[in-house]
Amino acid sequence: MIQPNDNPKSESRNADYVLPPIGGNPGTSENVTTPGSFANPACIKPGSAGASTFSSPNSTGMPSLPTKTAWDFMPADWTCTDLENYERAEAWQAPEGFTAVTQLEHARLGTITPQMQRVAEREPHLTAEQVRDEVAAGRMVIPANINHLKYKLDPMCIGRASKTKINANMGASPVSSSTDEEVEKLHWAERWGADTVMDLSTGGDLDATREALIQNSNTPIGTVPIYSMIIGRKIEDLTPEIVLDTVKHQAEQGVDYFTIHAGILKSHIKLAKNRLIGLVSRGGSLLAKWMLQHNEENLMNTHWEAICDIMREHDVTFSIGDGCRPGGLADATDELQLAELVEIGKLTERAWRRGVQVMVEGPGHVPLDQIEFNMKAQRQICHGAPFYVLGPLVTDVFPGYDHITSCIGATNAAYHGASMLCYVTPKEHVGLPKKDDVKQGCIAYKIAAHGADIALGIPGVRDWDDDLTRARAALNWKKHFDLAFDGDTARAFHDEDLDVDTDFCAMCGHDWCSVRISKEIQEWASGKADGFDRGKTKKSPGLTPEQQQILEQRGHLSPEEIHKLAAKAKGKLTAKDDSGKASCHSDYVDPDEAKEVAPKETLVQLNTAEAHGLSKNDSII
Amino acid sequence: MIQPNDNPKSESRNADYVLPPIGGNPGTSENVTTPGSFANPACIKPGSAGASTFSSPNSTGMPSLPTKTAWDFMPADWTCTDLENYERAEAWQAPEGFTAVTQLEHARLGTITPQMQRVAEREPHLTAEQVRDEVAAGRMVIPANINHLKYKLDPMCIGRASKTKINANMGASPVSSSTDEEVEKLHWAERWGADTVMDLSTGGDLDATREALIQNSNTPIGTVPIYSMIIGRKIEDLTPEIVLDTVKHQAEQGVDYFTIHAGILKSHIKLAKNRLIGLVSRGGSLLAKWMLQHNEENLMNTHWEAICDIMREHDVTFSIGDGCRPGGLADATDELQLAELVEIGKLTERAWRRGVQVMVEGPGHVPLDQIEFNMKAQRQICHGAPFYVLGPLVTDVFPGYDHITSCIGATNAAYHGASMLCYVTPKEHVGLPKKDDVKQGCIAYKIAAHGADIALGIPGVRDWDDDLTRARAALNWKKHFDLAFDGDTARAFHDEDLDVDTDFCAMCGHDWCSVRISKEIQEWASGKADGFDRGKTKKSPGLTPEQQQILEQRGHLSPEEIHKLAAKAKGKLTAKDDSGKASCHSDYVDPDEAKEVAPKETLVQLNTAEAHGLSKNDSII
Repeated sequence: MIQPNDNPKSESRNADYVLPPIGGNPGTSENVTTPGSFANPACIKPGSAGASTFSSPNSTGMPSLPTKTAWDFMPADWTCTDLENYERAEAWQAPEGFTAVTQLEHARLGTITPQMQRVAEREPHLTAEQVRDEVAAGRMVIPANINHLKYKLDPMCIGRASKTKINANMGASPVSSSTDEEVEKLHWAERWGADTVMDLSTGGDLDATREALIQNSNTPIGTVPIYSMIIGRKIEDLTPEIVLDTVKHQAEQGVDYFTIHAGILKSHIKLAKNRLIGLVSRGGSLLAKWMLQHNEENLMNTHWEAICDIMREHDVTFSIGDGCRPGGLADATDELQLAELVEIGKLTERAWRRGVQVMVEGPGHVPLDQIEFNMKAQRQICHGAPFYVLGPLVTDVFPGYDHITSCIGATNAAYHGASMLCYVTPKEHVGLPKKDDVKQGCIAYKIAAHGADIALGIPGVRDWDDDLTRARAALNWKKHFDLAFDGDTARAFHDEDLDVDTDFCAMCGHDWCSVRISKEIQEWASGKADGFDRGKTKKSPGLTPEQQQILEQRGHLSPEEIHKLAAKAKGKLTAKDDSGKASCHSDYVDPDEAKEVAPKETLVQLNTAEAHGLSKNDSII
Repeated sequence: MIQPNDNPKSESRNADYVLPPIGGNPGTSENVTTPGSFANPACIKPGSAGASTFSSPNSTGMPSLPTKTAWDFMPADWTCTDLENYERAEAWQAPEGFTAVTQLEHARLGTITPQMQRVAEREPHLTAEQVRDEVAAGRMVIPANINHLKYKLDPMCIGRASKTKINANMGASPVSSSTDEEVEKLHWAERWGADTVMDLSTGGDLDATREALIQNSNTPIGTVPIYSMIIGRKIEDLTPEIVLDTVKHQAEQGVDYFTIHAGILKSHIKLAKNRLIGLVSRGGSLLAKWMLQHNEENLMNTHWEAICDIMREHDVTFSIGDGCRPGGLADATDELQLAELVEIGKLTERAWRRGVQVMVEGPGHVPLDQIEFNMKAQRQICHGAPFYVLGPLVTDVFPGYDHITSCIGATNAAYHGASMLCYVTPKEHVGLPKKDDVKQGCIAYKIAAHGADIALGIPGVRDWDDDLTRARAALNWKKHFDLAFDGDTARAFHDEDLDVDTDFCAMCGHDWCSVRISKEIQEWASGKADGFDRGKTKKSPGLTPEQQQILEQRGHLSPEEIHKLAAKAKGKLTAKDDSGKASCHSDYVDPDEAKEVAPKETLVQLNTAEAHGLSKNDSII
C-alpha cells in the first residue's frame, strides 16, 4: 500500500507527515499547512549569520534580497556597539529610558512578543525567532494596534517569508451601504479567507462604522485617514492640524494600518501630463489637487515624522500609498510611478528611523511582462519592506470580470515578491461590491495567494492540494468536497448532474472515467492512499440551504428539481445489491440511460507484469 | 488636444492609428487589432534570410527559437537542391507528379493559399508571406479540412507568431446533453470568442452531433477519434482496422483536427507507479489499458504513418494528445510526462515527413514556477510545433472555480510560448458544463489570451485596452460599456447601483472621483482624447433583457426594481438644469442622499502653472 511519503517529488512535505487539520471550512490561512520542523534549506539566506537570519523563499521567481534592511535605518539615538554584526539585536544599545512599543522596536531589542509567538503558530514553517528577525529587518510587519489587541484581533503577519495574504476592501460610499451592512461584509470576508480588511468608507457614519469593524474583527483593520479628514470640508481646506488630529483619533480607536499618500510630490504632477487616465488613486488625486491649489509640497510628506510619532505610540503600521499608481495598462511603469516609488523608499527609511513598521502599496494595472520588474524595483528601492499590491489587472477590457483579470496579475506579483494582495471584485470600475462580489473577490485572491505560495515552495503549503488529488484519485466525493475551498459550490455543481456519489461523474460517465481506470491498475498508487478510500457507493447526502441557493442562482434546474435534490437524503434510494454499488441513479437522467452507465462490473485489477515481459506473479514495481 | 499617438509608451501602436472596428460584440479574434503595416523589429528572426523568415514575438518571456524546424523533416522523396538555403521553398524539388494538399505542403512549395490570405487578414500584424513561412517551418497550423471548407469554416491559424487562440470543449456525455444542445453551445461558444471547438461527445448520437457541428461552425472542429472507436465495444477489442476506418470517416466528414494519443508507450506505464492520480487523460488511460491487456505497443504509434496518410488526404491537422498529462500538481513535470513528450517530438517529425500539419497538447495541472520550463521543453523537443495547452491549473483545491485557477496558468503558458489555450469551465472535475459555464470558461480564457498577447507585445493588441482607458478617463460610460468584452454585464452591474450616466460612479460617489479630479487638471491629457468626450450627462438607457437577466441572477434587486431599471428609458427623468448635468438620481438611493452627492459645480479646470512657479498664463506643459 502506498504511503503518503512515497512520492519523491513532494519536496515541500515535512518528514512527519500528518493530515492537515482542515475540512471545507475556508477561513484563516493556517488551515493549509501542517505543523512540523522547518526543513527547506533554500529558505536560509546563504552566508547569513545563521538560520536566525531567515529570508524569503528562494525560488526562481523571487528577486534577490535587497542590499539594505531596516537595520541600516536605525533611530539616531541608538548606538551600535558591534559594527560587524550590526544586523543583530546584540550589536545595539537603545537610549536610556527607552521603552519599546512597536513590534519593530521589540524585535530590535531581540524580544519575542506574544504576537510574534502567535504568528509563528500560524506560519508553521517559521519559528518565533525567525519571525522576530524578519520584523527587525523590516521585511515583515505584524499590524496589531495595541488598542485593537484589547478586542478580538488575532495577530498575523505580512512579509514574503510567510504565506501570501489577501486583503478585502469594504466601506460605505455616499451612494450605497450602511454600518450594519459593513459589519456583515466583514464577517463574510473573514469567512472567505480575508487576512486583513480595509474600511474605505466615504459615506454614512464613518466613525461608527470604523469603531464597529474594529470591535468585531479578528483581522487587522486598515484605513485611508484622508477620507475622514475631508468629510464636510473641501480638500483645499485641509491643514496639518486636521491631519494629525485625525491620525491620532483613528490610532486611538485601534486601526492597525494606515494608507498615507506621502510619496506624491509637487514635482511629480507634471509627469502625469501624458497619462491616459491621470491619477486614479483617490488619496493621490486629492493631495495633488491640494498641492496645486496651495502651491505647497504634499503636507503628508512634510509632516511625516509627526505622523510617525503618533503611529508609533499605538503601533499602527504604515501602508505607504501609491498615489500615482497607473489606472490603465498604458500608464503602467511610467516615469511618474517610478518617481513616486523612489520617494516611497525614502519615506520607508524615515519611518524605520522612528520605529514604525512599514509596508508599501503597489500598482493596479500592469501588463504581465512588467510585473517582475515592478516587484524587483520595489524590493530594492524599499529595502524589502513588504509589498502590498492591488491586483494588478493584466488587461483593461473586461469590466465585470476584474476579479479574474487582476488575480492573474496578483498571482504573478506574489510569485515575484509581493506579500499581500488587495482583492478586486467583479464590481470594480462600475459600482460598489455586494455580498456575493466580496465572496467572489476573496476566492479569486485566495487562489492567487495559494497558487503563488505553492510556486514559491513554502513548506507544507501543497499538502492540501495533494490530499485533494488523493481524494479525487480515490473517487471519494465526500472527501473531495470536504477538502475543497468552497465545498458547497463544488457539491452543488456535482449534484446538479448526478446526485449519487459513485465511481465516476457526469463529465465522462462510467465507461470513460480515466480516474477509475487508473485505480484499476493493480500496481499503481493512484486512488489507494491510506484514509482516502471511498468505501461503498453512497447516495449523495442532499443539498444544504447554501447549496440549494447556489443551484437556484445558476437557474438550470426548476425549484422542484432543486427541492428533490435537497430532500433526497431522507429519500428511499438504496444500493441495489450487496456489491456496495448504488444504481447510477439520477433524478435527471432517463432511467434506461442511467442503467446503461451504471457500473456493470466490480473493479478489475489489471496486472501489468505481462506487459513488461514478466510472469504474472512477479511484482515489477 | 491630445492626439491618440502622443503617448510615447504605446510602442505596439501602428503609425496610422485608427479606432479598432469593434463595439461590445465579442467574437472573432480580429476584433482587437488595427490594420496597418507590420513594424515590430523584435519579431524578425535575427540573422534570418530576410523578413520572410518570420518568427514568434521576441519577448522576455518567450523561449528562444528551437534549433530545428519542419524544414529539417522533409519527406524522403523531396530533393534539396541548395543545402545552404534549405529553409526556403526555392531550395526544394518535390517528386514528379506531386500535388500539394495540406497547407504545409503548399507552404513547402512556396504557395500562398486562399486560407493563408484569410489568416493574414485576421492577423493584421502578419503578411500572407509570413503566414506561409511560419506554416512551412511547422510553427503555425491552419486547421482547415478541405471538406469543412465547403461549409462555413472561416480559416484561422494557431501559432506563436499570431494571436493566442482559445478552444472550447463541448460534447454530450452518456449522462447529459443532446445534439441540439451541443449546436446551441457551439453558437454560444463562438459568440463568446472561442477560436476552435472540440466535440468530445461520448454519448448520444456521436455521428449526428459531429456532422451538425461541422455544418454549423465558423470555427475549426477538433475531435478525439478514439471516443467513437470504442462506442459499443470494449477498449480491448480495438484493432488497427477500426482505428483507420474511424479516422477516415471523420476526416471525410470534415473534422479539422484530431487528438491522437500516440505518445504513450508500453514502457511508460511503469512510470505512473507513484503518481497520486495515475492517468487522467481519457485517451491515454484507455490506450494504457489496451496495451496492458494485449501486451503490445500502442497501436496509434505503430500505425502512425497510415493515420498520417489518411489525414493528409483531407488536410486534417494533428493535435498530438498527451495521454500522460498530470492530473494534479503532485504529478506535474514528472518523468512520465517528459518521457511521453520526447515520443511526441518524434511523432511530430514523422508527421511532418508525411506532409501533415502538427500541433501538440500539453499539461493540465502545473505549479506556476514550472510553467516556463514546460513551455521551453515542448518548444525544443517538438521543434516549435504550436503548443495547445489545457489550463494549466496552478492549484487543485478550488473545484467550482477551475476556470480561474486554470486561466492563471494559461496566461503564463501563452506568455511563455503556448499558442492555443483549451478552456476549463467552472464545472471541471465535477460535471458537464451548462451554457453559462461555457460562457464563463470562454471569458476567463479570452482574458488569458488577451493578457498574454499584450505582454508579448503583439502589434496593435493593446489599442483596445487603451481605448477603454480613454473612455474611462472621459467618464464616458456608454463608450466604456460598448468597448467592454461583455458590455451587458458591465452595464447591468453599473446600473444596479446608479442608473444615471454621470461624471462619477457608485464606487466612490462624486466628491471622491479621482478620474473626475484628473480630468479637471487643465494641462493633463486625461479624459480629453478626441472622440471620447462623454457629452452631457445622460440617463442610463434602460436595461436590455440580457442585462435584466444578469441582475436577476445576482439576486440583489427585486423583480420590481429590475423592471423599473428596464423601463426607465421611457421614463421621465430629465436633466435638471442647462448645465447638462442630470440630478444624481438613482431609484435606489434616498433622495436627500442623492442630492448630497449630485454635482454642485461644473468642471473646474485647475491650472498647474502656479504650482511650478510660473505665471498663470504660462503653459508649462
